[in-house]
Amino acid sequence: MISFVAPSGTGKTSLVEAVIKNLCGRGLRVAGVKHDAHRIELDTKGKDSWRMRKAGAETLLVGKNQLAWMSDNGSAPPLEDLVRLFFSEADVVIVEGYRSAGLPTILVARPEVSDPTWRRPDEDRIIATVHPDEVETATELVLKHLAD
Amino acid sequence: MISFVAPSGTGKTSLVEAVIKNLCGRGLRVAGVKHDAHRIELDTKGKDSWRMRKAGAETLLVGKNQLAWMSDNGSAPPLEDLVRLFFSEADVVIVEGYRSAGLPTILVARPEVSDPTWRRPDEDRIIATVHPDEVETATELVLKHLAD
Repeated sequence: MISFVAPSGTGKTSLVEAVIKNLCGRGLRVAGVKHDAHRIELDTKGKDSWRMRKAGAETLLVGKNQLAWMSDNGSAPPLEDLVRLFFSEADVVIVEGYRSAGLPTILVARPEVSDPTWRRPDEDRIIATVHPDEVETATELVLKHLAD
Repeated sequence: MISFVAPSGTGKTSLVEAVIKNLCGRGLRVAGVKHDAHRIELDTKGKDSWRMRKAGAETLLVGKNQLAWMSDNGSAPPLEDLVRLFFSEADVVIVEGYRSAGLPTILVARPEVSDPTWRRPDEDRIIATVHPDEVETATELVLKHLAD
């Protein structure tokens, strides 16, 4: 697992997208985790899973290729447990955000973007700083991290 | 874990909803699983998680209160593993459908609804047959199953 972290507007997602394509092109099985600190809403009002949840149950909606867990008061399981269950066959897991997991981190920075309110990750987690255009460099950093 | 199974149009979801409310009202922690044999689409085109997936990665989107796993070629983990990870603190797990899991099953039936193409669950899984209006009976069946 390796994490990409950047202030908003840096172009992190485009870089992550390109790195994933690169890694897949090398035959690796890649998994991605996007962390969103806010509330998200996957459910649709009136659907069966929504009705179960509104009746008071924590709910799982399980389809062939997708799955949703929805809770009005619980909190998501730890990242390591999720990765073990869902990504046991992945060669590499690319994580966007998720600072609380304390992962080795590639910091994405663009000189013209600065946000004084943005808090840098812990320095001892940062394994490198890259510009969002440095797709090959970032890919090599991930591969090197895998090999270590 | 206990499963509710019925032909479409029987009123199963309304019954499950009422049973969940009843169980919650008795102070139990209830979890629900809705199985959908079809492809479902939780993602939104253009979102970060969608971009990761389209780049070739199996993807997890993790929020505060909800979580989505999305894959274009994988299959969902087994029900038991999902329940162990997400519902470890639940007192009871109500499952809609999911025949492949071979759970004890309450068959929901309404005389006026008959679907000749509908396949009954294995007889040895059926612990009772209830009418969709029999909320108290169904609740008692779940409680009895918990106590067994």
